[in-house]
Amino acid sequence: MTRAIVLFAHGARDPRWVEPFEAVAARVRAAAPDCRVALAFLELMAPTLVDAAAGLVGAGATRIDVVPLFLGTGGHLRRDLPPLVEALRAAHPDVDIHLHAAIGEHAVVVEAMAAAAVAAAGFGE
Amino acid sequence: MTRAIVLFAHGARDPRWVEPFEAVAARVRAAAPDCRVALAFLELMAPTLVDAAAGLVGAGATRIDVVPLFLGTGGHLRRDLPPLVEALRAAHPDVDIHLHAAIGEHAVVVEAMAAAAVAAAGFGE
Repeated sequence: MTRAIVLFAHGARDPRWVEPFEAVAARVRAAAPDCRVALAFLELMAPTLVDAAAGLVGAGATRIDVVPLFLGTGGHLRRDLPPLVEALRAAHPDVDIHLHAAIGEHAVVVEAMAAAAVAAAGFGE
Repeated sequence: MTRAIVLFAHGARDPRWVEPFEAVAARVRAAAPDCRVALAFLELMAPTLVDAAAGLVGAGATRIDVVPLFLGTGGHLRRDLPPLVEALRAAHPDVDIHLHAAIGEHAVVVEAMAAAAVAAAGFGE
């Protein structure tokens, strides 16, 4: 099995917006060095999820984990993402595709955001 | 000085979207028990930043730290938020208002998102 992770983000017009997402991708690559790691975007930035997955499959991926780098689970993840994942499964029926929860719903991320907010406001912990 | 923190988030139509933001607010309250902590939203959810700040000032806040719960710094934080903060300062000239960077730009949040993504995909660290 050749594994890949797609970090799926919203996208924005401002190219500087993507910097923390690229930082996350670099850390995931470091933590999972045998795994290909790609960013993909819902809109306004490239590549799309479909294009990113096609590249990973072309490079040999047989399992792709899609991790949404969204804080909450709203319309983008409930309505927009599922048909994209279904399109991936239809396009790549031999590839095992796993869709995960919004990154903001993980306790470690909630804790980190709270710690960062408290520190930014100048409160000790 | 009576302090308050406003956690400023995007907002969404789906009420379930707000859950991780409420979890962050609860943790910030626990870490800074002498500080009032409020969520506020750019759109689609209430209260607005202006309304949240008015409530905090009415309750006695003399310093408000605004912490954006956004992952990247795009148009919402570069274009939409600064005039809202200027409106707060104009409405409450005696209140010390501090605007902070996007929560996603803090290293601890980047690290947590990467750790959560790696764990979700089933890789050990």
